[in-house]
Amino acid sequence: MNNSPHDALLSWFLGPQAENADLFERLITEALRDHVFWRRNYHPEDGITIRELDKRSAGYEEAVATLTQELMGLLAELKRDVPFFSGRYLGHMAYQQTIASQVGYFAAMLYNPNNVSPEAAPVTTRLEQEVAQQMAEMVGYRRDEAWGHLTSGGTVANFEALWIARNVLYLPVAVVGAAQSLGLDLEVRLPDGSKTDIGQLDLSQLLNIANRDVLDLWERSWQVAPREDMARALAQHSLATAGYQDYGRRLAAEYGDALPDSVVLVAATAHYSWKKIVRALGIGSNQLIYVPVDGNYRMDPEALWDRLKALHARRTPVLACISVCGTTEESAVDRLDRVLEVRARAGQELGMTFHLHSDACYGGYAASVIRGPDGVRRTGQEIRDALGEDWPSDEWVRSMVALADADSISIDPHKLGYIPYPAGAILLKDRRARELVAVDPPYLAPAGQAEGTEQDYLGRFIFEGSKPGAAAAAVWLSHKVLPLDESGYGYLICRTVVGARRLYRALARYDFAPFRIILLPEPDINIVCYLLHHPLLESLEAVNALNEGVYQVMSVSAKADPEYIITRTRFQTPMYDRAVDPLLEQLGVATPAEWTAAGKEGLVVLRSTVMDPFLADPPPGPDHISGFLDALADAGAVSLARLIGSSPV
Amino acid sequence: MNNSPHDALLSWFLGPQAENADLFERLITEALRDHVFWRRNYHPEDGITIRELDKRSAGYEEAVATLTQELMGLLAELKRDVPFFSGRYLGHMAYQQTIASQVGYFAAMLYNPNNVSPEAAPVTTRLEQEVAQQMAEMVGYRRDEAWGHLTSGGTVANFEALWIARNVLYLPVAVVGAAQSLGLDLEVRLPDGSKTDIGQLDLSQLLNIANRDVLDLWERSWQVAPREDMARALAQHSLATAGYQDYGRRLAAEYGDALPDSVVLVAATAHYSWKKIVRALGIGSNQLIYVPVDGNYRMDPEALWDRLKALHARRTPVLACISVCGTTEESAVDRLDRVLEVRARAGQELGMTFHLHSDACYGGYAASVIRGPDGVRRTGQEIRDALGEDWPSDEWVRSMVALADADSISIDPHKLGYIPYPAGAILLKDRRARELVAVDPPYLAPAGQAEGTEQDYLGRFIFEGSKPGAAAAAVWLSHKVLPLDESGYGYLICRTVVGARRLYRALARYDFAPFRIILLPEPDINIVCYLLHHPLLESLEAVNALNEGVYQVMSVSAKADPEYIITRTRFQTPMYDRAVDPLLEQLGVATPAEWTAAGKEGLVVLRSTVMDPFLADPPPGPDHISGFLDALADAGAVSLARLIGSSPV
Repeated sequence: MNNSPHDALLSWFLGPQAENADLFERLITEALRDHVFWRRNYHPEDGITIRELDKRSAGYEEAVATLTQELMGLLAELKRDVPFFSGRYLGHMAYQQTIASQVGYFAAMLYNPNNVSPEAAPVTTRLEQEVAQQMAEMVGYRRDEAWGHLTSGGTVANFEALWIARNVLYLPVAVVGAAQSLGLDLEVRLPDGSKTDIGQLDLSQLLNIANRDVLDLWERSWQVAPREDMARALAQHSLATAGYQDYGRRLAAEYGDALPDSVVLVAATAHYSWKKIVRALGIGSNQLIYVPVDGNYRMDPEALWDRLKALHARRTPVLACISVCGTTEESAVDRLDRVLEVRARAGQELGMTFHLHSDACYGGYAASVIRGPDGVRRTGQEIRDALGEDWPSDEWVRSMVALADADSISIDPHKLGYIPYPAGAILLKDRRARELVAVDPPYLAPAGQAEGTEQDYLGRFIFEGSKPGAAAAAVWLSHKVLPLDESGYGYLICRTVVGARRLYRALARYDFAPFRIILLPEPDINIVCYLLHHPLLESLEAVNALNEGVYQVMSVSAKADPEYIITRTRFQTPMYDRAVDPLLEQLGVATPAEWTAAGKEGLVVLRSTVMDPFLADPPPGPDHISGFLDALADAGAVSLARLIGSSPV
Repeated sequence: MNNSPHDALLSWFLGPQAENADLFERLITEALRDHVFWRRNYHPEDGITIRELDKRSAGYEEAVATLTQELMGLLAELKRDVPFFSGRYLGHMAYQQTIASQVGYFAAMLYNPNNVSPEAAPVTTRLEQEVAQQMAEMVGYRRDEAWGHLTSGGTVANFEALWIARNVLYLPVAVVGAAQSLGLDLEVRLPDGSKTDIGQLDLSQLLNIANRDVLDLWERSWQVAPREDMARALAQHSLATAGYQDYGRRLAAEYGDALPDSVVLVAATAHYSWKKIVRALGIGSNQLIYVPVDGNYRMDPEALWDRLKALHARRTPVLACISVCGTTEESAVDRLDRVLEVRARAGQELGMTFHLHSDACYGGYAASVIRGPDGVRRTGQEIRDALGEDWPSDEWVRSMVALADADSISIDPHKLGYIPYPAGAILLKDRRARELVAVDPPYLAPAGQAEGTEQDYLGRFIFEGSKPGAAAAAVWLSHKVLPLDESGYGYLICRTVVGARRLYRALARYDFAPFRIILLPEPDINIVCYLLHHPLLESLEAVNALNEGVYQVMSVSAKADPEYIITRTRFQTPMYDRAVDPLLEQLGVATPAEWTAAGKEGLVVLRSTVMDPFLADPPPGPDHISGFLDALADAGAVSLARLIGSSPV
């Protein structure tokens, strides 16, 4: 192991015992005073508004007393918060944030820039562009073609991706309408590589054109007609203008067939927010089609192919396919390279294509693992050798490399970027797509950009409006200190992987008798899932009750302050169909059919996210892993006792 | 003037010359050290992970050097940010934030709670509920009936309001479907007060049931059928499940008529994000219907009535009507009381109703002006007497009181709440409506709530997922120090109103000759709009160029650091149809028809938001208002010279 990044790692966080408190306080104070003197240096001739004498008034002193008192109250309350910082917290994807991001956030927050526009944030809008480009490079996008920005989180990022995908999907229909009304001939490339006049295509073909080809078509259409005419004609024929109801009627009238509703394919493990998103967009949750996952919780490419064939047979357009890079439950990384192969095959054999989005909200930063500081790709073997672990597989590396071919990617800096909330991000492979959702606010054109230069202020292209420039500063400073390669985030994430694997092996080795532990496969990144079983338990319900009880014992609440903290999830039908079979087989208390019949009850699975990089190395003192194993065994015993006490099994 | 709140006001902000720097640093340091010792007190037996010796390693020192160096770079960059804190900034809605909110944000940020669920934020989720209740009380909602939460900003808040409104609108159709499939009889109240069996209603009637009556119907429907059956039946017949395309076909098949697309009425001055929102929701911007505003930029109730009659004649359902409380351009406050009267009349005379949303993102906090510390309403006369100003009018007070009858309200604490970004909020008058957009994440049921108690963790009901608990702490602490009544926010906002009116009168009095100033009407809150004119200018284009030039001179850019900073907007057709006529008349260079023909060019209007409470009182030293007037006159001269130099007028 290279010593230098490990030494650096020790400076990246405040520390489980706030060991870096001096450093942290020095930087916070520096940022604060720097801001104070910025104010004092701005037109000092303006004089003093709040005079020293004013501060002696009863009203002032009372107000300060109130503020101080209430702050003390808040600080006291906050002590009941969850100790995410500790090695004892092995639950959700939460840990300490990097000092860089916390100090960067605080420093910029004092200025309170609003990244909706450079006019309200001349500095941090630039930083936001910079971090988006850094992330784009990390995933292999071309800096000059890609575009991205920060969002409040993963839900908004995923929402934007699907919103943009819908606008791209239906654009050729609008271009046909515009071309007809303006008397234009335009050619487009089809998924099989052939080129045709768009006027010759039926509706199904128009809705099966690759992202880049749609955007090329769109760009050419502006070149062959006066700008204003084209803008008007495209707007007249666009879904965004017409709305779904009218648009559906129009398609039916113009093409004699509105086709079945376009669908969104998601890996069955996809985040629950996708359901919210398709409902909100008006797509409808019926059109959200789950693609089964394999035993490793990765989207099954064969199953995807089968789904596509079936959809093709019914002439159903696919709006988008959502592949996951780091599921929130298991940190599973879809074989994106194979998903891309399936899409290519669908293009060749079925004339079918779709927007491919990678939901890398959790796993995106892990792409830094395969990058050397020089930007050169590391091979799986190089990484394995450096780590001394049988991780990552070459397939994992290929999945990460394949991100470069996704049409869009969402990545949350506030997850594996160790940045404070709120910080999500959306990246587009082809920046032109952002124009399809642009709206012009009347008051935000930045100074000096009114004369026809590109108005690329964020407010035009994003769903949100006002947004904290401080988040951009936080991400920016953190990326400066922890580069997006093996020396920075790559190193940090590798340590968590090593820690997770240490935990995994320890769970497998520990003697839980008379309990038995059932482990999910080794995680693709750093979330370890497992459940306890006991010979006395003979039903799915009882096993669920046992594990729910373990979770209750090992989670923070008003009543409890457990030694170690975990969380749990529920594997429900239809998302976990097939994937859950090996677990059920090991449990031996229920068949897949019985589990399916249990519906929402599902299968309770315990879950430990290892974001703590210090779990990787056995410490000189007490080891959290052995402490955790004992606590888990104890919790099992307590839960079982309660279970048997409350209802005979 | 009561001296005590004025003295308190002096302690609320860091100050234009950072006069309260000592106080601020003391509280920040307190919060930081408090957190540090929280960590040290959590299982001190765990020992030290980052040892003192480690901090002497070359790798550690290098990493600290990098962090410090990059922070210095960031701090240097930030100095190019906009001096929102200064009395010289008279542009966008940006100012200093309250010390309470900044310290509260920082204190909680150290813990990085995630308000998606109490499990990830046991303390700050409670604070979020509390601030939502405080805001609900401020607008006159009933604490036990209302509900609300924070969002990343106004766009998401408005989006949620319309998303929920859509689910309420179509719910009766789903209930009819469910009642038919389960063989139930259910009665519902119609807008004219009569009651009917839902099975007897035609589609148009089903889409014209008041919010509360829909929710009553929904609640009763759960009481007459087994829970699971009803859940399934409702889902089968809901738009959220079916999606727009399929749903439209179904309505056409089942009712022989899908009706025209439902529309959203907005005050013509509504924020540009409403266009984004209706596009994203799949409603389509064609269905966004602007209701003309009067000469005070308030929605014209007569015009609303005319629109409703026309829509009724075409049997078009109205999904929602968006009234604005504090337009972002002019701070105009719609006469919500009169809008409510129009809705009541439409119910009686046309059998027509709709969700009424108040977009109070900007003006919502001004509702604190009419509240005494005891919660008792202040009359217009009381407020005017206390202020010594001819503000607010009794009509203004009635408009604010009427907020209590809006179905939903969006309010941004990060605007007139003086809270750091990100902090928007959405309030629902009837909390039951939130259930219509609920989705259950598999892993977020909080501990102790799995046994059938209400699962009211935020993640279920909101659009976003992970979100900063720090924002809730910021709002909470600020509300503690500045209560939502005349002694706190009410006082603060009144001072800005007085400042804005001082500015307004000074602009009217100042001798700009040979220039002439044209003022919009006195603002409803604190945004002053005006434009310069010069006898040499004879076209709309030239006047626009003059004012655009003034804006360029008086705005921050890489090249310029002006003495005073303003911003500008553009009044475009169709939003400002009619409202712009008085301005055009005063200008005398273009008719309304010519302005309409100018389209996006519109009319450039200069704009100064007065969020600075210190502008209200003439200072002992140099007065920013007189400095500003001179700077504006100079900018006019510079702009004119450039204009004449570049193209003869």
